[in-house]
Amino acid sequence: MATDLNPSPRLLLGPGPSAVHPRVLRAMSTPLIGYLDPEWLGLMDEEQSLLREVFMTKNTLTLPLSGTGSTGMEAALCNFLEPGDRVIVGCNGFFSERMCEMAARYGATVTRIEKPWGEVFAPDEIEDALATGGPTKMAALVHAETSTGALQPLEGIAHIVHRYGALLMVDCVTSLGGTPLKIDEWGVDVAYSGSQKCLGCPPGLAPFTASDRAREVLLARKSKVPNWYLDLTLIEKYWSKDRAYHHTPSTTLHYGFREGLRLVLEEGLEARWRRHRENAEYLWKKLEELDLSFHVTTKNRLPPLTTVVAPGGADEAAVRARLRDEFNVEIAGGFGPLKGRIWRVGLMGFSSRRENIALLAEALREILGR
Amino acid sequence: MATDLNPSPRLLLGPGPSAVHPRVLRAMSTPLIGYLDPEWLGLMDEEQSLLREVFMTKNTLTLPLSGTGSTGMEAALCNFLEPGDRVIVGCNGFFSERMCEMAARYGATVTRIEKPWGEVFAPDEIEDALATGGPTKMAALVHAETSTGALQPLEGIAHIVHRYGALLMVDCVTSLGGTPLKIDEWGVDVAYSGSQKCLGCPPGLAPFTASDRAREVLLARKSKVPNWYLDLTLIEKYWSKDRAYHHTPSTTLHYGFREGLRLVLEEGLEARWRRHRENAEYLWKKLEELDLSFHVTTKNRLPPLTTVVAPGGADEAAVRARLRDEFNVEIAGGFGPLKGRIWRVGLMGFSSRRENIALLAEALREILGR
Repeated sequence: MATDLNPSPRLLLGPGPSAVHPRVLRAMSTPLIGYLDPEWLGLMDEEQSLLREVFMTKNTLTLPLSGTGSTGMEAALCNFLEPGDRVIVGCNGFFSERMCEMAARYGATVTRIEKPWGEVFAPDEIEDALATGGPTKMAALVHAETSTGALQPLEGIAHIVHRYGALLMVDCVTSLGGTPLKIDEWGVDVAYSGSQKCLGCPPGLAPFTASDRAREVLLARKSKVPNWYLDLTLIEKYWSKDRAYHHTPSTTLHYGFREGLRLVLEEGLEARWRRHRENAEYLWKKLEELDLSFHVTTKNRLPPLTTVVAPGGADEAAVRARLRDEFNVEIAGGFGPLKGRIWRVGLMGFSSRRENIALLAEALREILGR
Repeated sequence: MATDLNPSPRLLLGPGPSAVHPRVLRAMSTPLIGYLDPEWLGLMDEEQSLLREVFMTKNTLTLPLSGTGSTGMEAALCNFLEPGDRVIVGCNGFFSERMCEMAARYGATVTRIEKPWGEVFAPDEIEDALATGGPTKMAALVHAETSTGALQPLEGIAHIVHRYGALLMVDCVTSLGGTPLKIDEWGVDVAYSGSQKCLGCPPGLAPFTASDRAREVLLARKSKVPNWYLDLTLIEKYWSKDRAYHHTPSTTLHYGFREGLRLVLEEGLEARWRRHRENAEYLWKKLEELDLSFHVTTKNRLPPLTTVVAPGGADEAAVRARLRDEFNVEIAGGFGPLKGRIWRVGLMGFSSRRENIALLAEALREILGR
């Protein structure tokens, strides 16, 4: 028989999940109510309205999907693309590769534009792709690449994408609630995130929003959405006045998520972005004092997730294991071409605190013998 | 700004979610650890092994999927069916209709065999369908139909299905942990459930199991699984020694689910099934004393979910509203052809307790004036 649950008290400074705020943990211990209870429906309305504020959008179709960030990505592709539709994907990290893989499975024609992992795209590079190769249904970018630590600037891009009659789709898994993201002002059509990063909640929900322009594309589909669970035409019926049953929402995750959104708005978006940036800058300064350097140029560096070049001579995996085993601190290694070459340090949500950085710096100083 | 979370203390006697056991709620307030932490990987192994015991299976491919019961259904179809494959679906309720809808979206050829809502299939009726109309890839049945309250007998069916070279797929959302279900002994190839019914956990995970025979079908696919998030060839890599990242699991839901499985095995499967049956029989007796009758014949009645004929003259929705508003008790109405005609009373997991039934009976007596 398995024993009582008793995990070590890890400090989560990796790419997510981040530390969950104690108020969120407490909210999740609340006994459940039914998924058609009038009180529950009221909570859903509140949750949607909080989420719109956090996304800085008025989009009707704004809701948390019942799955991790990957369901957000899959919903963003399978609902708005039909077989043969062309999607341009900015490929500069692990998650844009995933977009290509998913889009291909749905029969879309994928046009890749490429950059080395850690770099970002300029607006004219996106325009070049749009201007050649026929009509485009969607252009897709990763705003905050968790695998590389790069922040893709988004201002001015929607204008170009819309000129070519396409939708702008953006992965905001590691940006929402941690760095400026202005869905309506920037003209983003489809965006998704994850609950477990800068929002400080457990994994399991994918905040999602789609513009009226995107919703028209959805409603004009010639074929049914091939993925039933993520079919937004069905899901929005439960999240609107119809309240038509689709699937049973995870009451507990929503309790926690609503509390997480309340915490974001109590702090204020601007203040929260500032906290994430100031703590990131403190981390960068502390690591520079240890003669460590960064994979991404300062200008494109993502405050919630810093990629640190693993110093020559150190066994990067052994350093991470000692951080975990001796100090209960989790940071992560790299993926794909960055495997063995970088550390990924996340300062997201409740994990983004000055004291955590001081501890990490001191532990690294000791382990690296600097 | 939304207020503090403070839902009314509902007694959940509907079709799910059921009341979550207090130990499960407590487990979920545990701070998180990372999804590649050795301690987490150990918890995953334990969870799988507990789940195998509860499913009564030795199947390697046994794990909880990151979504509600509907993801279990979708995974059971999209992984084992390819376009043009024939699936026979026993249609006798809401959830078998959903199977047909999903299978069609994946390009399968759906052969429906039909029964009125509340009845079940005899083995020879399934054999008749297998014997005509060409080769069959899968036969799909709902073991415990939450929309009708009928329990489909499963013994002896796999033998027939296998004789025709097909897989037997079974929806066990409302049976697992509440009524006998013996995956290996009965020869079931693919089965899924939900965490929020007889297992007494919150919604958000879909316990899933597939036999080696089914796994061979999966590995012999000519095409990629079209649904990326539910692609078992990728998911099993994370749940096996590879530990290859697919998506971030919901730590918190798994903490709770593991505790829920421990509670099932502490009680013992046989004892738990007996509790569910004895409490259902107590409910039936109490409701008969109120001159109420049942939609499903005694022989096929599902202990965890009883469908009660709404008495003539009573406004069934108004009765439910009074139960909720005056007694904090939730029961549900009917779907589709049973809308307005039945009540659905769930006695699942931690909700299946004698005192809950006594309260419901007394509240109904008062409201119905009997």
